[in-house]
Amino acid sequence: MPNHWNEERLGPPYPSYQGQKWLELHSFRGPLLLTSGAILEEVTVNYQVYGQLNSSRDNAILVCHALTAGSLVASVDDPEKEPGWWDPLVGPGRALDTNKYFIICSNVLGGCYGTTGPASTNPKTGCPYAMNFPVITIRDMVHVQKFLLDHLKIKSLKAVIGGSLGGMQALEWAVTYPHMVEKVIAIACSGRFSSIGISFNEAARRAIMNDPHWRRGRYYGGDFPRQGLALARLIATITYRSRESFEKRFGRLLQEEERANPFNFFEQFAVESYLNYQANKLVRRFDANSYLYLTKAMDLHDLGMGYASFAAALRRIRAVVYLLGISSDILFYPQEVRGLAVTMRREGVLSYYEELKSPHGHDAFLIEFPQVKTFLRDCLSH
Amino acid sequence: MPNHWNEERLGPPYPSYQGQKWLELHSFRGPLLLTSGAILEEVTVNYQVYGQLNSSRDNAILVCHALTAGSLVASVDDPEKEPGWWDPLVGPGRALDTNKYFIICSNVLGGCYGTTGPASTNPKTGCPYAMNFPVITIRDMVHVQKFLLDHLKIKSLKAVIGGSLGGMQALEWAVTYPHMVEKVIAIACSGRFSSIGISFNEAARRAIMNDPHWRRGRYYGGDFPRQGLALARLIATITYRSRESFEKRFGRLLQEEERANPFNFFEQFAVESYLNYQANKLVRRFDANSYLYLTKAMDLHDLGMGYASFAAALRRIRAVVYLLGISSDILFYPQEVRGLAVTMRREGVLSYYEELKSPHGHDAFLIEFPQVKTFLRDCLSH
Repeated sequence: MPNHWNEERLGPPYPSYQGQKWLELHSFRGPLLLTSGAILEEVTVNYQVYGQLNSSRDNAILVCHALTAGSLVASVDDPEKEPGWWDPLVGPGRALDTNKYFIICSNVLGGCYGTTGPASTNPKTGCPYAMNFPVITIRDMVHVQKFLLDHLKIKSLKAVIGGSLGGMQALEWAVTYPHMVEKVIAIACSGRFSSIGISFNEAARRAIMNDPHWRRGRYYGGDFPRQGLALARLIATITYRSRESFEKRFGRLLQEEERANPFNFFEQFAVESYLNYQANKLVRRFDANSYLYLTKAMDLHDLGMGYASFAAALRRIRAVVYLLGISSDILFYPQEVRGLAVTMRREGVLSYYEELKSPHGHDAFLIEFPQVKTFLRDCLSH
Repeated sequence: MPNHWNEERLGPPYPSYQGQKWLELHSFRGPLLLTSGAILEEVTVNYQVYGQLNSSRDNAILVCHALTAGSLVASVDDPEKEPGWWDPLVGPGRALDTNKYFIICSNVLGGCYGTTGPASTNPKTGCPYAMNFPVITIRDMVHVQKFLLDHLKIKSLKAVIGGSLGGMQALEWAVTYPHMVEKVIAIACSGRFSSIGISFNEAARRAIMNDPHWRRGRYYGGDFPRQGLALARLIATITYRSRESFEKRFGRLLQEEERANPFNFFEQFAVESYLNYQANKLVRRFDANSYLYLTKAMDLHDLGMGYASFAAALRRIRAVVYLLGISSDILFYPQEVRGLAVTMRREGVLSYYEELKSPHGHDAFLIEFPQVKTFLRDCLSH
């Protein structure tokens, strides 16, 4: 049995991804050898496709999703579905033109949207893995995507595209399977995760693990560590925005201005109310253990891992690499993204850097559609 | 009875400020009318002085401490004491020359180092205030300092100096008691706290309040909300440093490199280990409820509060204002500090801005002593 997401087993108040219909579910028997040396005996991949694979099977584009997103990059095939996270960019005639390309987006290994993760059943025990799930890396996610492409009989990709955690996967594709990828388009990410990024992730993990309901990960079937996951998301949300966007949108506004008494200890500034809203929203749709494992995978992201050096890893790349930094990003400073492009060039990789000018911070790639659209179009037609 | 810090009542594992000897303790019967309209019947101020007050009583400088610091700005009078937080800057012949000036530093209202705060005994109930302590503001802290100066029969100050929360107090002094202050030296702070600053404080408060030991603040005598306060401090510590300082010092180094297995879920990067160390250190010496109240006071910091406008508040200022921004500060961007200087000038305040070039982030004012020393000297001799 594929170990897919099962609401009933987990029971309320366990989160679910409401309304999500999975297009495809593919399971393969392992063993999948992980970067750590550990083995997963069985892996299920949950994925979504858009457009048609042509007869020579060479028009595929792999889109990689970010930390808490899923394979629903667009809802083009079914307008009754909930909106995809890149809806304005995927569809007939759009930047990722489904008349032309076969778009694939799979849920990442370690997540909670159908692809094997810590909430999946461990075939050895019949119980959820929880914290017995092995530590995974971005490279492991890429290996699973490769297995999916094998299953789909796709031998080459026009492009691998992603932002943030998705961008890390795109870059890892270029290093791990250099001969399969024509173009890599990576947005708001880096070649190895920064120490300040690790710091914010560690704060988020502690928030979850401090929650008494977390119970060392064995909360399935019981109370969900809501408060912990909410705080983890609250912390992350600050880093996805920017000083500028917060000042413009909230400044020092109080929530419900008329009735507000700022001297009530629990009275909230509008920005606090916004953060708490975002925090509590995630709790309804994401698994806390997945949050732990995926942030850990981000922390471990280092293209050079296992190679003689970071430069040696870059020298494997055959794809053309397009990097997009975001001017106000405080999680991946634009200088850092630009620096990667420079280092790549030095190692003989054909790489280009552009900067998205936006006050919206890291999340701008999910907000500034016209700019991202132009960038994607330019890269794909280049 | 003055409601001073009492270790016994609180019991282990309650934090204490080890080795701290209070120089002076002054209690006055209120009522102290707070900005909120609430009243404190009795207030104790714990403070430290350095140097000699001259016969005309006009050589005093008030130094205001930051969030978790205390009145021990220097240990000059007793080399056996623990080091002060500005040791290299205070003493005979130093920037704050105790041969010349009478330096006063008092613990803030709402803190936990002897001045009245949430851990103090509520005279009405005989129990600690806990969350029945009223919400306080930076302005209230300044009022309490003014009462202390009255007690010391000091009618004017050569200067009020502080960084971060201390800088907020210094600026508030200039607005609240314009005729008492000759110079204000405010470092790494702003005239009203930013929404991203409020966001980080909200994350820290949630970390404390999520801790089951917090028990709505009534943990005195019981288990201390260690994990919550530690996480609050961990989050704050990230904002006190900078991407640059973290990359230089830690990068992607693993803790105990030789034995390290990065695929062990709980194995830590050096930066995580550092953050956890800093986090756990605070727990031994600070009260969680004080952390809540002092961060709330920061959030409420707005020089314009109660005046017709922010500009109107600035127009009250008679002191010369010296502002120092820190180039890599991510909590108070240097542009923000500089912006305040510009706004002040526009409102007729004689204000100067300088920038401390440092990779160390917000905390640079506690690290870059030579630069801070030059700045203080220049301001005082100007």
